[in-house]
Amino acid sequence: MSSLELGVCYYPEQWDPSQWRDDAAQMVEMGLDWVRIAEFTWGLIEPERGRFQWGWLDEVIEILGQAGLRVMMSTPTAAPPKWLIDEHPEILPVGPDGRARGFGSRRHYCFSSDVYLAEACRIATEYARRYGQNPYVCAWQIDNEYNDHDTVLSYSEAARQGFRRWLEDRYGSIDALNKTWGTVFWSSAYSSFDQIELPNGSVTTPNPTHSLDFFRYSSDRVQLFNRAQVDILRKHSPGRDITHNFMAGSFEFDHHAVATDLDIVGFDSYPLGNLLGSTLSDQEKHRYLRTGAPDYQGFHCDLYRSQGRGRMWVLEQQPGPVDWAEKNPSPADGMVRLWTWAAYAHGAQAVMFFRWRQAKFAQEQFHTALLRSDGSPDQAAVELAQIVKDRAALPPATRAKAKVAILMDYASIWAADILPHDDGFPNAQIIREWYAALRELGVDLDFVGPESDLNGYSLIILPQSMIATEDLAARLEKTQAKLLIGARSGSKTPDMHTPPKLAPGGLADLTGVRVLRVESLPDLAKESVVLQKNAPCEFTGWREVIETDHQIIGHFVSKYRNGSPAVTRSPRATYLAMVPRGDLLRKIVRDVLSWSGIEAVEHGPELRIAQRGALSFAFNFGDRALHLPDGVQRQILIGADPVEPYDITVWKGGEPPDNCASG
Amino acid sequence: MSSLELGVCYYPEQWDPSQWRDDAAQMVEMGLDWVRIAEFTWGLIEPERGRFQWGWLDEVIEILGQAGLRVMMSTPTAAPPKWLIDEHPEILPVGPDGRARGFGSRRHYCFSSDVYLAEACRIATEYARRYGQNPYVCAWQIDNEYNDHDTVLSYSEAARQGFRRWLEDRYGSIDALNKTWGTVFWSSAYSSFDQIELPNGSVTTPNPTHSLDFFRYSSDRVQLFNRAQVDILRKHSPGRDITHNFMAGSFEFDHHAVATDLDIVGFDSYPLGNLLGSTLSDQEKHRYLRTGAPDYQGFHCDLYRSQGRGRMWVLEQQPGPVDWAEKNPSPADGMVRLWTWAAYAHGAQAVMFFRWRQAKFAQEQFHTALLRSDGSPDQAAVELAQIVKDRAALPPATRAKAKVAILMDYASIWAADILPHDDGFPNAQIIREWYAALRELGVDLDFVGPESDLNGYSLIILPQSMIATEDLAARLEKTQAKLLIGARSGSKTPDMHTPPKLAPGGLADLTGVRVLRVESLPDLAKESVVLQKNAPCEFTGWREVIETDHQIIGHFVSKYRNGSPAVTRSPRATYLAMVPRGDLLRKIVRDVLSWSGIEAVEHGPELRIAQRGALSFAFNFGDRALHLPDGVQRQILIGADPVEPYDITVWKGGEPPDNCASG
Amino acid sequence: MSSLELGVCYYPEQWDPSQWRDDAAQMVEMGLDWVRIAEFTWGLIEPERGRFQWGWLDEVIEILGQAGLRVMMSTPTAAPPKWLIDEHPEILPVGPDGRARGFGSRRHYCFSSDVYLAEACRIATEYARRYGQNPYVCAWQIDNEYNDHDTVLSYSEAARQGFRRWLEDRYGSIDALNKTWGTVFWSSAYSSFDQIELPNGSVTTPNPTHSLDFFRYSSDRVQLFNRAQVDILRKHSPGRDITHNFMAGSFEFDHHAVATDLDIVGFDSYPLGNLLGSTLSDQEKHRYLRTGAPDYQGFHCDLYRSQGRGRMWVLEQQPGPVDWAEKNPSPADGMVRLWTWAAYAHGAQAVMFFRWRQAKFAQEQFHTALLRSDGSPDQAAVELAQIVKDRAALPPATRAKAKVAILMDYASIWAADILPHDDGFPNAQIIREWYAALRELGVDLDFVGPESDLNGYSLIILPQSMIATEDLAARLEKTQAKLLIGARSGSKTPDMHTPPKLAPGGLADLTGVRVLRVESLPDLAKESVVLQKNAPCEFTGWREVIETDHQIIGHFVSKYRNGSPAVTRSPRATYLAMVPRGDLLRKIVRDVLSWSGIEAVEHGPELRIAQRGALSFAFNFGDRALHLPDGVQRQILIGADPVEPYDITVWKGGEPPDNCASG
Repeated sequence: MSSLELGVCYYPEQWDPSQWRDDAAQMVEMGLDWVRIAEFTWGLIEPERGRFQWGWLDEVIEILGQAGLRVMMSTPTAAPPKWLIDEHPEILPVGPDGRARGFGSRRHYCFSSDVYLAEACRIATEYARRYGQNPYVCAWQIDNEYNDHDTVLSYSEAARQGFRRWLEDRYGSIDALNKTWGTVFWSSAYSSFDQIELPNGSVTTPNPTHSLDFFRYSSDRVQLFNRAQVDILRKHSPGRDITHNFMAGSFEFDHHAVATDLDIVGFDSYPLGNLLGSTLSDQEKHRYLRTGAPDYQGFHCDLYRSQGRGRMWVLEQQPGPVDWAEKNPSPADGMVRLWTWAAYAHGAQAVMFFRWRQAKFAQEQFHTALLRSDGSPDQAAVELAQIVKDRAALPPATRAKAKVAILMDYASIWAADILPHDDGFPNAQIIREWYAALRELGVDLDFVGPESDLNGYSLIILPQSMIATEDLAARLEKTQAKLLIGARSGSKTPDMHTPPKLAPGGLADLTGVRVLRVESLPDLAKESVVLQKNAPCEFTGWREVIETDHQIIGHFVSKYRNGSPAVTRSPRATYLAMVPRGDLLRKIVRDVLSWSGIEAVEHGPELRIAQRGALSFAFNFGDRALHLPDGVQRQILIGADPVEPYDITVWKGGEPPDNCASG
Repeated sequence: MSSLELGVCYYPEQWDPSQWRDDAAQMVEMGLDWVRIAEFTWGLIEPERGRFQWGWLDEVIEILGQAGLRVMMSTPTAAPPKWLIDEHPEILPVGPDGRARGFGSRRHYCFSSDVYLAEACRIATEYARRYGQNPYVCAWQIDNEYNDHDTVLSYSEAARQGFRRWLEDRYGSIDALNKTWGTVFWSSAYSSFDQIELPNGSVTTPNPTHSLDFFRYSSDRVQLFNRAQVDILRKHSPGRDITHNFMAGSFEFDHHAVATDLDIVGFDSYPLGNLLGSTLSDQEKHRYLRTGAPDYQGFHCDLYRSQGRGRMWVLEQQPGPVDWAEKNPSPADGMVRLWTWAAYAHGAQAVMFFRWRQAKFAQEQFHTALLRSDGSPDQAAVELAQIVKDRAALPPATRAKAKVAILMDYASIWAADILPHDDGFPNAQIIREWYAALRELGVDLDFVGPESDLNGYSLIILPQSMIATEDLAARLEKTQAKLLIGARSGSKTPDMHTPPKLAPGGLADLTGVRVLRVESLPDLAKESVVLQKNAPCEFTGWREVIETDHQIIGHFVSKYRNGSPAVTRSPRATYLAMVPRGDLLRKIVRDVLSWSGIEAVEHGPELRIAQRGALSFAFNFGDRALHLPDGVQRQILIGADPVEPYDITVWKGGEPPDNCASG
Repeated sequence: MSSLELGVCYYPEQWDPSQWRDDAAQMVEMGLDWVRIAEFTWGLIEPERGRFQWGWLDEVIEILGQAGLRVMMSTPTAAPPKWLIDEHPEILPVGPDGRARGFGSRRHYCFSSDVYLAEACRIATEYARRYGQNPYVCAWQIDNEYNDHDTVLSYSEAARQGFRRWLEDRYGSIDALNKTWGTVFWSSAYSSFDQIELPNGSVTTPNPTHSLDFFRYSSDRVQLFNRAQVDILRKHSPGRDITHNFMAGSFEFDHHAVATDLDIVGFDSYPLGNLLGSTLSDQEKHRYLRTGAPDYQGFHCDLYRSQGRGRMWVLEQQPGPVDWAEKNPSPADGMVRLWTWAAYAHGAQAVMFFRWRQAKFAQEQFHTALLRSDGSPDQAAVELAQIVKDRAALPPATRAKAKVAILMDYASIWAADILPHDDGFPNAQIIREWYAALRELGVDLDFVGPESDLNGYSLIILPQSMIATEDLAARLEKTQAKLLIGARSGSKTPDMHTPPKLAPGGLADLTGVRVLRVESLPDLAKESVVLQKNAPCEFTGWREVIETDHQIIGHFVSKYRNGSPAVTRSPRATYLAMVPRGDLLRKIVRDVLSWSGIEAVEHGPELRIAQRGALSFAFNFGDRALHLPDGVQRQILIGADPVEPYDITVWKGGEPPDNCASG
């Protein structure tokens, strides 16, 4: 059971040393526990090869530690210095257009570069040796946001060579690769691994197994890069937690896999920064312009908490307008506090604000902070004071296992990206939309990966598990959980083949479904589904022609095969032959919860309720006060009923009332 | 007089040899006559230079032939093997961005590469020697879809050198080139052919004659590539028909020219695959989502039939959803049969379905087939059974020469692409829209090229003949046909100059028109034309200021020069000073048909009627039953009156009734 | 005091020499005074290195001069010949994608190439020596449209080396650069100037000071290139005016700086060519489709007149449809004359039509001219005859200094381009919109640059002066003028840092404002401002949270900090905390004019009135007759009251009536 810890990201190198002591004192005074430093300091520490300037950083750590702060140290590998790039220009990442992406900002390295891997280990070792046992250094962050600026997939010569070796390891013989890839198609057989190119230059669509393997290889390189630094830190800095800051809406590498090597999974939370570029409707973007989508924080915290085996920190929390989105609105006053407590409710152990003081120069000048660039407190500082007060009012609590789990499978997302069939297939968005539909009904959720322990849930949801193996199916079958399975699930083998008995492949027995044909519809020709006795609801995009001997609980309304099955239900699984969104999704989710015996309470678009142990949190993302659900006995610790706009209410005790059961 | 022959595209290399015999038997049982094979087999036949593995293909042919099928053999040059690319990377095509387009899919060769030409001839010779006199091999397809994936225009070093030599042949002296291109403009004179670059890299628009010559050169390279293989096959495989499969909506090379070397012009028909990416309105795309545009099959079959001197085959017929469009809807049940008979009505001698069995791996897994990947029959197999029954009910018939011809000139399309003036000028789309407007009125059509025999027509239509020579004009004049001439026709000489006496150049005498100025209007500022006594109809885009001494039968309604002539009529020619579409187009076409004494019957957007000899075919592209035109004596052979949705009716005898004459 | 002079752009090299004499005679007969020649003649004059063919050009000049025309000679450096590019391919400009932009059109040179600079000087010297003292050559144009086709920013190796040397000159030491750029950010410090790359290749946003310096460097190279030719012409062609033709809507180099070296600032005026690609609304584009935006001519003539210290010529005037816009409509009949007199009213000394006769070949065939390509007179020739008549009716007049000046700062525009924060920030468009809002109220305007003499104005307007120095602020303070200052002004130092006391930096004292936070809003979430007692008006995009002790005359209506200050007023300055457009802009401008004691008359969207000395000009951009403002005593010299559509009225005398004072 733990209380919320608070921290801040600090760049002392950007400020005059005379200011460091005051900064440290002010951080402590404001209630901060942690300070993260040194992310982008390689060139400052080692201005030329082998010449190290540690003094200033020694001093920073001493000052911060002496002031009472715990230091999260970073390895500086997200921004190698210019002299290293000049020595080894082959370190640079290469875009899909074949052009090297140069020095001048950050993340200018290719994960496939063994030269860079060695250099990254060398500098990480230097940092680890220097500070690994420093009493104030209590945790480490490795690198920064691995997939930022689309650098996970790089098409360098190193990647080409590395991919060939990786394929050799995977397949053993070129004949095995030819068979698995199906290179009899379009006469693309290889006689040697050294003939294989990267999948970015072909005249038209490359072989899909080729593409999927390149995703896997690239993901493995991220894991290898991360693990190499983990090993160094474990050796030189025993007892310190190791983390990395994952991003929102990021699926380019297998986060489950990388997380297995970390003690804490970090998350960089930018609810407004990620809003306008998202796939929400214009109406939703307008509604949530100054709050962010209500399930942004929950989705990522739940996902990364699950990956972190319960240990998840927000390593960067948006404090006001950011500088990097297409438009950068201000959060409503109160939202920084609301997001912070939402993170906590969804399992965060700590929240660190990005950043201490707004920069006066260089790229991120417009990114707000706790303090303005002139040192005056900005809105986030005001809200931090309230957060510190709130914290005092709350007993420690630990998030419990949920009744419902969502399966998140990165390879399935890559697979649908490679062979969409439906251009604009919502892919990972499906998972986020299903999450939101469940959260609007007050359901607490865990995430699982294809390798996770699946036991103990009442309902397991596979929104988009395109690659669902026989093994996964067998483990699902053993759980006794009800299943909700989205269209396309099980439609490809791990080798990206069509299953011998057609989709849903390994899920055939559980669902009792056989997919005879798939098609996709444009938005200009929407069709409808009638679920049970509901009115028809529109859908578009992916549609399947299926056959089943089980119950048909929803059917298509269409000029094409009108009345054919759209939603089927076997004893164990509800299967969807299209991708529901909006109203149709909500109706299906409600029906499935009822079928699974999970309680549901309709909270509407702006109220969210989450449990952390004995504590219940309500969050109001709207501009009007909203009442809490009736009939619950509550000991309110923070806030009130109704919940004020952009405000929170926290209480102890009280089960959801019986009369709010789903139905 | 011929009946419809049926066939299928088959990739035996993608299936276990144990399945070949059953496949062959099942094909015969289903009524198929032809099987096309071996398109993408180079790497399988010759896995390394000079080592040939013919055994499996020998066996396949033997099995298919023994089963009673006629084999269409393919040369495998659309997909050279990796070892050849590694030996000669200069074979690769180069995009307009200067980057080579690599191995990993198909069509990774540059038409300008003499190295590849020699290799293609070498392998074609090997195939031709091996199978040229095989009794089961009854026809050949060369390569596959020449212009697929935009590979006709390639900007390689080979193209640069080849273009220079081609220019030297064309112009003889660099002075002649300078004069023809007009290189005094922007001081771009050349002193040697070796100074000339490809037109893809200039700072702004390159010289238009330079660009047009590059189109011509590139088209000549396609013709040369095709002819080289034709010559080989003629030598080694006497008596077999030779074909190539042209694509829909393709204008990148001169199909007239390539067709002169073929015995049969092939066409790959994907009515739904080509719908959503077309220029139809959203409303039309919705209406025809599951049928394809009603004139898709007719347009291409008429065009390629004319190019094939009456010999045209559908070499690939869409059997269900394809996998390569932005969205891939299912055809309405019945459409595969409808498309098949539409092809026949428009002159096809054979229709071959693409493909036998849906692939289990590689790029085209989502492309449907006659059979699903598990071998179960898909919808197209059901419809094939009906087609075979239909066929038995129909006597042989040969398509007659039409009364109306449309002039299709590839160079004019290139010219308008190079100097659009009106960004978004509909260009080739004009021809398709005029075709459709005529077909809605039941008019059967031929196509002619600028070199064709133009005699024997009552009406010849030049929708967009930007380059109309004096010679063409003289030959048109001699025909006595009425003429309908679209805006912009004759506005450039073959050298891409403005004609000395302005547009319409060579067509001036026939039309009696002089074009004083051209302009183009954006969609946000549409204007109108009043034709005869009709209500005004909107148009946009291209508009001309013309003068004439002849009859003005339509005028502009505009704030600019209101009342100026929009449609004029000399004794021989109706000339349009804008590009009519929609209602305005329909009104003009109806008026011109009446003027030309051609009968017209309004069939509406969903019914099409076509004649093939004594047989009349009606096709219902809509979802309601539609009555046939009244007053015709009919002996119905297939179907009924009214025609059922997505169904056909075929009858013998009966002229269109008198009271349906245009007017 | 001067009358309007008239001229034409002529390309004798494109026509048979037998036509030259007739052309010259016809030009004189039509009333033309000037003829501009030889812009693109390098390759014709020097077809190979060192071999010169002057004869034909000698003859052209002799013919033109003898006929009575004054010749404006051009240096031919906008189009180097092919042989020079083949000798020195490093001359070619390089795009942001790193690819050289090749020969085949024009402007295929990089401003950073010292090789090209030397060659340009060599050929300019040859031209200057040959014709510098020719009695008919009365003026020179250098090169052609420096920033056309985006060639000012070039990413060549020459640019890389040149930029490094330029930085060395600017900063002296690499430490100074590191400090100014703030390279402690993202660890991007340099140890040598030779490590610095161009800002086009980094993984994500490059350092903003780096980018700004590259703009400055590139602008300096244009100035250096221009000045080098100026020096040559001054030496060899004494007494002749030297000019260059600036373009519309062009901000890529500092036009103030380049103008200081010219005698006359030229402008190429394409009111319709520049309309559809502009940022006007669709409704405005429709309204002005055949007239161009009413303030297009005024804005550019006022701007370039100010830069030319009163000497401004239109060197190319659109005569009819152009060929290079996305759509190319015809101007309404009368507009060529209207544009010509609008140029004169806004200070032009001469207007030259582009071009004499429409080209018969090459790139610009669709560009109209005074004559059609067959030599017949086109509409512009008809209007020219009227212009010549008009001219005879008007006494000479000189444009007076205005009461209101707008500050135009190119560096501020670059700065907002580099760090937009608000993607789609209207940037330079703000200046054009504010200009138009003032002109709709009949206010005559001057432009000033940051270095200009600011004295003598009643009102100085800073629509977007992101970089406003302390020095500028001090000079503004001394003027006693009222100030209108747009949002974002003063928000960055010249080094692209945030000012120590936050925005508006140097303008803090004048405005009494401190900007606490900025944000930006998407169009889907517009907010409103209430100004004084007006109804709320919408705005979107940039918004500031400010504090002030001065008067708040407008406030925000918003769910975020409702009522916070939007428009403030100190004794000297009105400051805006957002970017007003449309109605809000008009209301603010009217209020500020009243506050500044400047008279304003509402002229509506289609009428414009401008003063040139004692002459008043009214221009009707609409299709209905419009009345002149009441109560003015007028001696009408041309036209009538009301002003006819697309027509002008010119009168002497008459102050704006008292009852039209602003209010």
